[in-house]
Amino acid sequence: MSKRAVNPKELAPPVGFAHGWLVEHAPARTLYLAGQCGYDAQGRVEAPGDLVAQLERALANIGLILRDAGMTFADVVQLNFYVTSRDDYATARKSFGEVWRRHCGKHYPGMAMFEVVSLFDPQARIEVQGVAAQ
Amino acid sequence: MSKRAVNPKELAPPVGFAHGWLVEHAPARTLYLAGQCGYDAQGRVEAPGDLVAQLERALANIGLILRDAGMTFADVVQLNFYVTSRDDYATARKSFGEVWRRHCGKHYPGMAMFEVVSLFDPQARIEVQGVAAQ
Amino acid sequence: MSKRAVNPKELAPPVGFAHGWLVEHAPARTLYLAGQCGYDAQGRVEAPGDLVAQLERALANIGLILRDAGMTFADVVQLNFYVTSRDDYATARKSFGEVWRRHCGKHYPGMAMFEVVSLFDPQARIEVQGVAAQ
Repeated sequence: MSKRAVNPKELAPPVGFAHGWLVEHAPARTLYLAGQCGYDAQGRVEAPGDLVAQLERALANIGLILRDAGMTFADVVQLNFYVTSRDDYATARKSFGEVWRRHCGKHYPGMAMFEVVSLFDPQARIEVQGVAAQ
Repeated sequence: MSKRAVNPKELAPPVGFAHGWLVEHAPARTLYLAGQCGYDAQGRVEAPGDLVAQLERALANIGLILRDAGMTFADVVQLNFYVTSRDDYATARKSFGEVWRRHCGKHYPGMAMFEVVSLFDPQARIEVQGVAAQ
Repeated sequence: MSKRAVNPKELAPPVGFAHGWLVEHAPARTLYLAGQCGYDAQGRVEAPGDLVAQLERALANIGLILRDAGMTFADVVQLNFYVTSRDDYATARKSFGEVWRRHCGKHYPGMAMFEVVSLFDPQARIEVQGVAAQ
């Protein structure tokens, strides 16, 4: 058995958390993700106010975490979207679909969307968190 | 190892998500659920405004997902209730207990309730999401 | 395979939920936590209005659940903070770090913070929920 934090070098070094934890009992491998926003390499929200661009970047970031865990989006089994505006999410749904398919193809995990009051970063309009398994 | 989406034929075909994902490393089996609301077979909230009826239907739907995964409610180990009104939830708690026992008997997972601003479907007053394991 | 509820004797007996569920497929062990607030042994929020004290107690409670599962905080792989005020959380962050290190040392899981409208207990200002694995 082994267990390790997964912190891709392309992402801002996490302070007080890890971007993900990989638990391995060969051959079973489970990756637990931290909440991921549309952060750039300096840990700043890249596109304040742009929900779709933030999703794009959050998924790109998660893609790097999956890569470092030897996984792909096809391994993601549960994924939640926490948003600050349900209405903006609904309006953006078609663009969301395009962004999703660009990163994840036609793979669809068990998902949910929750509108919360706020996320930790006041610039963040979406945070994505989930679990992947091989 | 095998991994598959679990989409019972009695539920509305999911668009852009799966109702659940089953991960198997024999003999270990883990089921990750999507958020489930009180949807009818057409994917519409069956009882707008009726929190208890929505819980009843959400649990019935989850029961079908569990069945398709070869599981029962006794296998659910973590379950969250996301509601649009904490006060309505508190008021309905006795009825919730009755609905719960009808579906789940005396099995109680690790649970939590969170009042969120809104769920994706404006008619939904509760969404249930969790994990089951065998 | 075995699966059991984990309800430490020092915590208030849970009504309608379990404090945690331990799933074992030797040697793999996974612990799913219920949402945990800053409850005392009678199940009352110990320090109404005091976010940092509530975190301290919630972590202490989780520590007992981990102990009963034969685990420690070093096994926690995913942990979410649900708070009723993002701003209070941000203000308290330094104190949060001290409390964290006292309980968890330098171990940091995959984490997220979500500001919700309310938690089940009106006195609770933070609820902590996650997963641990060995």
